[in-house]
Amino acid sequence: MISPELFTPKILTAIEVMATLAFALSGVIVGAQKRLDAVGVVVVAFLAAFGGGTLRDLLLDKRPFFWVTHVDILWLVLLLTAVCMMFIRQKHIPKTEKIILWPDTIGLGLFTATGAFQAINTDLPYLVVVLMGVITGVFGGVLRDIVCNEIPNAFKDHRPYALCAFIGGWAMVLAIELGLPNNLSILIGALSTIALRALAINRNISLPAWRL
Amino acid sequence: MISPELFTPKILTAIEVMATLAFALSGVIVGAQKRLDAVGVVVVAFLAAFGGGTLRDLLLDKRPFFWVTHVDILWLVLLLTAVCMMFIRQKHIPKTEKIILWPDTIGLGLFTATGAFQAINTDLPYLVVVLMGVITGVFGGVLRDIVCNEIPNAFKDHRPYALCAFIGGWAMVLAIELGLPNNLSILIGALSTIALRALAINRNISLPAWRL
Amino acid sequence: MISPELFTPKILTAIEVMATLAFALSGVIVGAQKRLDAVGVVVVAFLAAFGGGTLRDLLLDKRPFFWVTHVDILWLVLLLTAVCMMFIRQKHIPKTEKIILWPDTIGLGLFTATGAFQAINTDLPYLVVVLMGVITGVFGGVLRDIVCNEIPNAFKDHRPYALCAFIGGWAMVLAIELGLPNNLSILIGALSTIALRALAINRNISLPAWRL
Repeated sequence: MISPELFTPKILTAIEVMATLAFALSGVIVGAQKRLDAVGVVVVAFLAAFGGGTLRDLLLDKRPFFWVTHVDILWLVLLLTAVCMMFIRQKHIPKTEKIILWPDTIGLGLFTATGAFQAINTDLPYLVVVLMGVITGVFGGVLRDIVCNEIPNAFKDHRPYALCAFIGGWAMVLAIELGLPNNLSILIGALSTIALRALAINRNISLPAWRL
Repeated sequence: MISPELFTPKILTAIEVMATLAFALSGVIVGAQKRLDAVGVVVVAFLAAFGGGTLRDLLLDKRPFFWVTHVDILWLVLLLTAVCMMFIRQKHIPKTEKIILWPDTIGLGLFTATGAFQAINTDLPYLVVVLMGVITGVFGGVLRDIVCNEIPNAFKDHRPYALCAFIGGWAMVLAIELGLPNNLSILIGALSTIALRALAINRNISLPAWRL
Repeated sequence: MISPELFTPKILTAIEVMATLAFALSGVIVGAQKRLDAVGVVVVAFLAAFGGGTLRDLLLDKRPFFWVTHVDILWLVLLLTAVCMMFIRQKHIPKTEKIILWPDTIGLGLFTATGAFQAINTDLPYLVVVLMGVITGVFGGVLRDIVCNEIPNAFKDHRPYALCAFIGGWAMVLAIELGLPNNLSILIGALSTIALRALAINRNISLPAWRL
């Protein structure tokens, strides 16, 4: 059994920052492909990185937001965007998309598990808890795509993404319900999401087609 | 005079559930026509069904949301979407659109009247109360269309929809102001909205054209 | 030195109303060009005029909204839209767009400075204070464009707009930090935003291109 003590807050924060930057990078790429100006690229990067957690906190009526108490991460995303604008060229995009697939997957798992955990101490029904996790993991990308005038990729890609988060969220709820410690439950939620998503990518699994 | 006692909570809840399902169904249809995957269709159905009331509660700073305290309706919408995905085919869509026109109209009336009523016990000015009703009735469909990358149908259809809700909302406010009981006032608001919308559909009435 | 006492609340309110109407007018124009119906034009005008401040208040968890306590301005925007629909024709639009460029610039400055000021009495970090100002000034137009199914103009125009607000917001924060009185600090924030934006328009300055 994996010991939860292995996951000290510092390591967790480091992984979370990495995941946030991966989400921000996805925003930079989508914004660049849409030919946004520098301001647009920054805003879309912010939305991709912080949109999901902010929407969850709005729905849960929780303040202050994560990016208000950790304002250095706002500066980091600003810096990342500036660096990207100086160095990323059209030819780098396919490779970058491939590279961020993994931190994005880790981000989906972490955001979903920690997002659902934020809701579990309230008296909300489990389905709502799980949905809060999914919203945290998925809606940053949804807002990014809406602002870029695209149907959200998470809703038309046919490769499981939100569904992995949904199942991973239930895994975390189940772990909590079984009396496992919080840290371990979050880890279980994150790892199941990540494993399912990795499986979907590697096996190229598609959601059952809507035979309209 | 119609006795308000006829409308026991159980009947009201049943009608409200039916209206919610009609709104969800409109989301399923729009999502399907946009070729969303299963996750996308579910999300759009949720937005269409709960988006208006959730936005109203966010603006009024009211918690918990309706779908948090009645989590079974979330499951019901999930079930409805799954059933639709199994049985609805392209050829069924025109007929389905025609069939849901009526529950959608009832939904518009009920959502508007109950939505405005939620705001009337606060100290808000009447115009804001009515707008909260309109938001409840109309913005589920608006969010549905935005996510599907369409200009909201309610804003470009030229057939009165939000306007019926606006007038129906004022009818409810007037009834309350005249000292009529709450139940009856909600009924008046809902019925005027429904009657106006039915008239607009049957007579094919158009909003005055913008002679640009 | 300009005396802050010159700016009595009445003058400030008058300027603010003018700026709000300029923002609403931008909504009317965009909505008209998208061939929305009367309801759509009104909603887009409302979003353009009140969307930014409402989003800021949602994020800051502040109630009641500006338009709830000043409900007469809602009526004014309704009236403005009705008048526009009667009198504006296609041929008037280019001229109108040119005319509102100035009240829009004043609006950007005022909304940004007063928006940031709303956040300064909270314990938020300065970057967040400035971002709240930018959101107030810019996101009305962003929501207007999203509903009209366009990539927000503020994100793809390449002519500094949000950037002017960002710098102007910092100017206000600096003024406060230097111990200048509130009124004067707001004025400094608004005027720097306005001056920068005017410079950008007159010199036709572009954001550094993203050499993708």
